[in-house]
Amino acid sequence: MNTFGRIYRISIFGESHGPLVGVTIDGIPPGIKLSPSDFTSDLLRRKSGRKGTTPRTEDDIPEIVAGWFNEHTTGAPLTIIFRNNNTKSKDYNKLRDIPRPGHSDFVAHSKFDGYNDYRGGGHFSGRLTLALVAAGVVAKKVIPQISIAAKLIEAGGKTDIDLAIEEAQKQNDSIGGIVECVATGIPIGLGEPFFDSAESVISHLAFAIPAIKGIEFGSGFAASRMKGSEHNDSIIESSGKTATNNAGGITGGITNGNPLVFRIAVKPTSSISKPQQTLNIKTGKVDTLTVEGRHDTCIALRVPVVAEAITAIALADLLLVEKARKNR
Amino acid sequence: MNTFGRIYRISIFGESHGPLVGVTIDGIPPGIKLSPSDFTSDLLRRKSGRKGTTPRTEDDIPEIVAGWFNEHTTGAPLTIIFRNNNTKSKDYNKLRDIPRPGHSDFVAHSKFDGYNDYRGGGHFSGRLTLALVAAGVVAKKVIPQISIAAKLIEAGGKTDIDLAIEEAQKQNDSIGGIVECVATGIPIGLGEPFFDSAESVISHLAFAIPAIKGIEFGSGFAASRMKGSEHNDSIIESSGKTATNNAGGITGGITNGNPLVFRIAVKPTSSISKPQQTLNIKTGKVDTLTVEGRHDTCIALRVPVVAEAITAIALADLLLVEKARKNR
Amino acid sequence: MNTFGRIYRISIFGESHGPLVGVTIDGIPPGIKLSPSDFTSDLLRRKSGRKGTTPRTEDDIPEIVAGWFNEHTTGAPLTIIFRNNNTKSKDYNKLRDIPRPGHSDFVAHSKFDGYNDYRGGGHFSGRLTLALVAAGVVAKKVIPQISIAAKLIEAGGKTDIDLAIEEAQKQNDSIGGIVECVATGIPIGLGEPFFDSAESVISHLAFAIPAIKGIEFGSGFAASRMKGSEHNDSIIESSGKTATNNAGGITGGITNGNPLVFRIAVKPTSSISKPQQTLNIKTGKVDTLTVEGRHDTCIALRVPVVAEAITAIALADLLLVEKARKNR
Amino acid sequence: MNTFGRIYRISIFGESHGPLVGVTIDGIPPGIKLSPSDFTSDLLRRKSGRKGTTPRTEDDIPEIVAGWFNEHTTGAPLTIIFRNNNTKSKDYNKLRDIPRPGHSDFVAHSKFDGYNDYRGGGHFSGRLTLALVAAGVVAKKVIPQISIAAKLIEAGGKTDIDLAIEEAQKQNDSIGGIVECVATGIPIGLGEPFFDSAESVISHLAFAIPAIKGIEFGSGFAASRMKGSEHNDSIIESSGKTATNNAGGITGGITNGNPLVFRIAVKPTSSISKPQQTLNIKTGKVDTLTVEGRHDTCIALRVPVVAEAITAIALADLLLVEKARKNR
Repeated sequence: MNTFGRIYRISIFGESHGPLVGVTIDGIPPGIKLSPSDFTSDLLRRKSGRKGTTPRTEDDIPEIVAGWFNEHTTGAPLTIIFRNNNTKSKDYNKLRDIPRPGHSDFVAHSKFDGYNDYRGGGHFSGRLTLALVAAGVVAKKVIPQISIAAKLIEAGGKTDIDLAIEEAQKQNDSIGGIVECVATGIPIGLGEPFFDSAESVISHLAFAIPAIKGIEFGSGFAASRMKGSEHNDSIIESSGKTATNNAGGITGGITNGNPLVFRIAVKPTSSISKPQQTLNIKTGKVDTLTVEGRHDTCIALRVPVVAEAITAIALADLLLVEKARKNR
Repeated sequence: MNTFGRIYRISIFGESHGPLVGVTIDGIPPGIKLSPSDFTSDLLRRKSGRKGTTPRTEDDIPEIVAGWFNEHTTGAPLTIIFRNNNTKSKDYNKLRDIPRPGHSDFVAHSKFDGYNDYRGGGHFSGRLTLALVAAGVVAKKVIPQISIAAKLIEAGGKTDIDLAIEEAQKQNDSIGGIVECVATGIPIGLGEPFFDSAESVISHLAFAIPAIKGIEFGSGFAASRMKGSEHNDSIIESSGKTATNNAGGITGGITNGNPLVFRIAVKPTSSISKPQQTLNIKTGKVDTLTVEGRHDTCIALRVPVVAEAITAIALADLLLVEKARKNR
Repeated sequence: MNTFGRIYRISIFGESHGPLVGVTIDGIPPGIKLSPSDFTSDLLRRKSGRKGTTPRTEDDIPEIVAGWFNEHTTGAPLTIIFRNNNTKSKDYNKLRDIPRPGHSDFVAHSKFDGYNDYRGGGHFSGRLTLALVAAGVVAKKVIPQISIAAKLIEAGGKTDIDLAIEEAQKQNDSIGGIVECVATGIPIGLGEPFFDSAESVISHLAFAIPAIKGIEFGSGFAASRMKGSEHNDSIIESSGKTATNNAGGITGGITNGNPLVFRIAVKPTSSISKPQQTLNIKTGKVDTLTVEGRHDTCIALRVPVVAEAITAIALADLLLVEKARKNR
Repeated sequence: MNTFGRIYRISIFGESHGPLVGVTIDGIPPGIKLSPSDFTSDLLRRKSGRKGTTPRTEDDIPEIVAGWFNEHTTGAPLTIIFRNNNTKSKDYNKLRDIPRPGHSDFVAHSKFDGYNDYRGGGHFSGRLTLALVAAGVVAKKVIPQISIAAKLIEAGGKTDIDLAIEEAQKQNDSIGGIVECVATGIPIGLGEPFFDSAESVISHLAFAIPAIKGIEFGSGFAASRMKGSEHNDSIIESSGKTATNNAGGITGGITNGNPLVFRIAVKPTSSISKPQQTLNIKTGKVDTLTVEGRHDTCIALRVPVVAEAITAIALADLLLVEKARKNR
């Protein structure tokens, strides 16, 4: 489903090599000041062109084409589009028949009976995260009291990111990484039992980001190796402040007033220069594929701003839902 | 929100110490043979009463009160209830004022303005997983071609589960664990771009289970430390079979025909016999709390059948959605 | 789908001759005072047993089995059930094969491949409106500032209801009617563009009531015969008050501060004592069917309280959604 | 909410005088042949420029910007946009302060705290039906077995449409009308109990069309004046064919295999040349407003193709949902 959220609802559309990618956001309160330049900083953080990222560069100019008037949100659905300018007209027919390992090529072909737009991954492309980042910029404005900051804390198993990337580039290989996201200023009480726990909503969005294969909140997997007496966070203030934060700011699925902390595991970029074995759909036999062009050595470099975006989107929706239920 | 799913939709209700817990399932195809005894095996696996689990035992008799006629599903919403018989009328007022660390007590009190049913955790209780297991039993019948098996692979950081539990019990403490779930027989193509990736839907449900703090698919967090050339799974057959399964059966958010593999991290049981520091809501000061009664040493022991249930529910819904979209 | 609403969400389940009918309401603000006796008045208005209604009488005792503690809503899903006690164990096999004209028998059999619970209409029975009325009682408490009143303004084409019923009974026939519903105290601004206009949400719920075949707001069908200069309601006060109310309180799909007025057309009761021609599913030939037992002469007599209920449910949901979007 | 549907889901965005209006359709089966010229005929039917319609003419060129590749749907969200070229830069400030009677001006201003785009009605404009018509063209291709035809059967209370329009124009006034829609080839079984009756889904969409104030199915309001023995449709064939069709093809909320028949009441165009009394928001006093420019004398002339569109959208979604639930 291309739509997510109950009140702050986003709908995403577009393809990597089609005319554009875009997002429509419904449920935004009217009167939020917004200008195209508000997107610049986050779009730049997502942008490729830095060391370890692909040299395909797009202008990434946001065009606000609906729901926006006199520099403010109107309350009507807000649509933001990004035109694709830098698509190369190279021959993609090869990729159609020889699905790249680790990519969506094979499943997209099967699921959509061969009608999928396979150019650059089509609708499954990481380029769609542009729409997420845009929706995140707006979401951050809906919840100005909350601060969100994500960073890459590990790449290829190393905390020295630059070194890890250098090594991988020498080997013509790619590496993954771990992104940690922390949000503060979250009121107590966000998250809805039974199914819309704060973790549920955030993880739902996190796994919509291509390349994410794991998520953990607070101590996460380490918690499974702790004792209850170690893991339990003692509440020490009426504000809900706890002495430790093993819960990562969420108890019983509901935000507890402490910083939200989660980490996501980003797999290594699937496109690598090394030759790989994969099925030729046409012949039904295994072929050797060499993915041409240059690619992100470490796609995780570009994930922090996307992680912030999905956090902002999730919290904006949960906060608006909570407001609705408060009978005051 | 107490409802989840697009076609196979479940709605959960009830409290730990109220009259009952229950689930209504909408969207079940008519004509599925079903009898109360079909639930016995899975309910027994979830049940407490074994070593390392709480001695509160309930009969857990499923009553199918709607959508069921002549031993078959009718196509109308199916409702299954479980009466609570074994609730003790002890004084819960203490818990109302002194929220147990690690539990939902504090956030539930805040979110619901003090009107929450705090007895035994109320609607946040692990007892609600009874409804999930019941919905899972039905979901498994909707997707008979798919086999799902989960087990506890680690407790307290040890693979020798029994030993880990024994040690924890000696220390009057609790431990967490890791549950691994594997599903085979899944057709290629389940999962919906952009937001309803197979991982998104499964993780959404997984984090609705109390005590879950992390999830990873395939190689998961380990993938973040692998190189692309190691992590990429070569497709070697037209069926989509890959040489390795680092992706855990999901590529681009869509099932790829290989076994679905995921692991969830279960935190240690929050209720422990050791005295703990926590806030007294009434006085606004920190008090020492000793949680009385006996509790699960390792709640993770009871999670595997719940993990299977949410997997079945997620796959049933994704499969029905995929059927809808196939224009044949 | 058995669920309706975005924030104030109701899920309905049960059958006419099964163990019970019930409703689960999610999204209710906590702290609303509620007791079983609050339902008495509206349930009585829906009840049969009066002149022109069927003599099957049920106790209709509401049991609040979830989301309710210390006489208040808790914020968790509220479930209310009504046991069916007065079901007769007569032979329904005849009805299985000979679908009653005007009833759901034939379509239910087709849609659900013959697995439907055909006894008394099963899940399609008017008995399910019991759940709607219960959800309406709770909804009215969520929006105490709004007053809703519906009445039967015409039966069998006559404004003298009693006379119309008497005549129909003499002829062993049934009649329909028109119910008008008026709600006051509605704030300006309820209804969501583009799809959830106030009329859309109300009509969606209205057509869930069995036997409803038409709805009109304000001047409705008569508006199609008016000139713009007659139909336009001049706004004469800052409160939004208009000189006339041809719009029925809704402009552009949004409530405008004037009384909400709508009328629904109720078809004549389908079950009549007169012999009717209908298909015998088994033989594939047309048979003569005489529906035994006594039935409502005019089901419309019981509809006003149901119309109020769906209005309250619709307005409660729209009001909570509007609260969410107000960024204050 | 700007999104509607469970499987065939449409999201609408845009304003009358913004850069564009558009629609994103999710859930379309892949492989449906589609070209911009497929839209021509229906767009032309909606277009203004004929007698009795406004002389503002737009090119109404559909641009398919997502989900479309090699002249077929891909399975990814399909987005179609229409640029607004013919917007006049006249002074709309007057309208901001003096809401036009019958229009959304006043409620939009209130609901959105004055931030609404008031130019030409903004998001509330009838121009948004362009997006509905486009979604309808696609929906018709999803359900090729179903034929849908709507026509204006009455204008200003007269069946001689041209005469009615001529008279209204002479009086500088506007008139409403009644549109009847008939659909054949619908399989038995579409519509979902309890809330998504076929009537519920169709009426929900119908009341999203600006200017619609009533809907009736089959005999509709006339049914309320009939006797049961007159109204009941005898089933005379195994196909479900009935001797009469008072039910309008829907029994118990489920399609019964007979032609779907419904009528919608269209109010007279709100914009008229005659001076009208209305509130001046700034002064809080009643002013005289003369709406300048030329307008549709009878907006109902343009509604038939929109009625067909919403019927196709509703049936496409119900049919896809029904396919999902069929366990075959």
